[in-house]
Amino acid sequence: MEQVSATMVFGGALRFLKHASKATGMPMVFSVFVPPGPGPFPVVYWLSGLTCTANNFTEKAGAYRTAAELGLIVVAPDTSPRGEGVADDPAYDLGQGAGFYLDATEAPWAPHFRMESYITDELIAVVEAEVPANGRRSVFGHSMGGHGALTLAMRHKGLYRSVSAFAPIASPTRCPWGVKAFTAYLGADRDKWRAHDASHLMAEGAARDFDDILIDQGLADSFLVGQLRPELLEEAARAAGQKLTLRRHAGYDHSYYFIQTFLSEHLAFHARRLGAG
Amino acid sequence: MEQVSATMVFGGALRFLKHASKATGMPMVFSVFVPPGPGPFPVVYWLSGLTCTANNFTEKAGAYRTAAELGLIVVAPDTSPRGEGVADDPAYDLGQGAGFYLDATEAPWAPHFRMESYITDELIAVVEAEVPANGRRSVFGHSMGGHGALTLAMRHKGLYRSVSAFAPIASPTRCPWGVKAFTAYLGADRDKWRAHDASHLMAEGAARDFDDILIDQGLADSFLVGQLRPELLEEAARAAGQKLTLRRHAGYDHSYYFIQTFLSEHLAFHARRLGAG
Repeated sequence: MEQVSATMVFGGALRFLKHASKATGMPMVFSVFVPPGPGPFPVVYWLSGLTCTANNFTEKAGAYRTAAELGLIVVAPDTSPRGEGVADDPAYDLGQGAGFYLDATEAPWAPHFRMESYITDELIAVVEAEVPANGRRSVFGHSMGGHGALTLAMRHKGLYRSVSAFAPIASPTRCPWGVKAFTAYLGADRDKWRAHDASHLMAEGAARDFDDILIDQGLADSFLVGQLRPELLEEAARAAGQKLTLRRHAGYDHSYYFIQTFLSEHLAFHARRLGAG
Repeated sequence: MEQVSATMVFGGALRFLKHASKATGMPMVFSVFVPPGPGPFPVVYWLSGLTCTANNFTEKAGAYRTAAELGLIVVAPDTSPRGEGVADDPAYDLGQGAGFYLDATEAPWAPHFRMESYITDELIAVVEAEVPANGRRSVFGHSMGGHGALTLAMRHKGLYRSVSAFAPIASPTRCPWGVKAFTAYLGADRDKWRAHDASHLMAEGAARDFDDILIDQGLADSFLVGQLRPELLEEAARAAGQKLTLRRHAGYDHSYYFIQTFLSEHLAFHARRLGAG
């Protein structure tokens, strides 16, 4: 493990770390904030959206004041493998920066694009051996990372105590971003896609272990109607009798200014379920 | 005035605006946050450090939660004129991104590098005609912008109700950054430099209108000993009988993570003196 940088913020330690990932076959960089105090602390994992690296959340979300107050470790990984030898696409919504938090089965993506294995297995092992973690963890994310948080939490029972999202891609099988990515990464057989679609998983009751799921959505978000479609998640929750708190906010867009506005409430949501704060 | 972008954050409105500046002879971009509510509000001006644009503070300082709570308008201008036809230097500490908040008298800088006139005159007029301002204002900044905040507040009596700084260049006439910039912008005659040196101004009593000045400095700041030298400001305050609250923080560096940690306390410091909050 290589320490790329270390900075103090709100009395805690913020580090960027780089490690050779077995899951993706590439070096991966993530940030980890450890609050002040001896710990051990629960860990909240943030999954970012299209085009992001570990930096966007770390620099722009304003997360660490509240994380320090609540005693939460916060981890922000990259959104895909990167570098020479990793397949890519000139579009912003496919390839590097657009891993979609699944293990690709199709060429040329399959060798490195294994973000589901990376996030749910390797990253947890690597992080929680490095910091004073107490074995409890939650996951949240934004846009593509909201899709990631919801699907990984539902697909890996018992791994996360709680899940929330900002402006998630609610049903990738029914929006252009998702159809494009799933076709590339999983192939043309749509039956294989449903297991990575938050709304389908939720309709099947896969979120029943969670007493509530918190979703915030800005109504000035330019991707709301064409890509994000939170109403599909709402329908699925209704069908499954799943508690879902979907809050729609007039005036807010898709940016980190929207995220920072409501981030403390998400951290508090997770802290309550993690026994922190 | 051209609106570059508009975003909601913490219930307020964050806009980037671009205008044709008479002072610098170039288009200038700044960000302005207006808190929720009808106002009018006081205005706090942030002056950034070397290499920064209006973006760094706006994206990374995490200022708007507290600004919304306290009812403060927050403005972040650029650090210099920029663009074709503006003199520049390949070094990061001279030319574009390094205006040093003074009006240059020397070639090739004099035509455009007039940041003192821009900040203390034109920007105030432009901003406060555009937003619900109540005529009260304060100034603060970081590093080169800490120098700017201190010198502009002391050189323009009555303009700002309060001043504070993060890791300011305490005495540019006695550090490499300042000597290089002042030589270029003001010429070799060191007598002309003193009027732009916060420590010299303070020693002469130029801060006597301020009941206190708040300075935060990280002790892990790599520029502390060679460039920033806050002890010179402390000596000057002692000599002048000026109240100065200089807080040294173990472990903190020169980054926006340091700034965001103590930013709310600076906003509260100004709000008390602006009758806000």
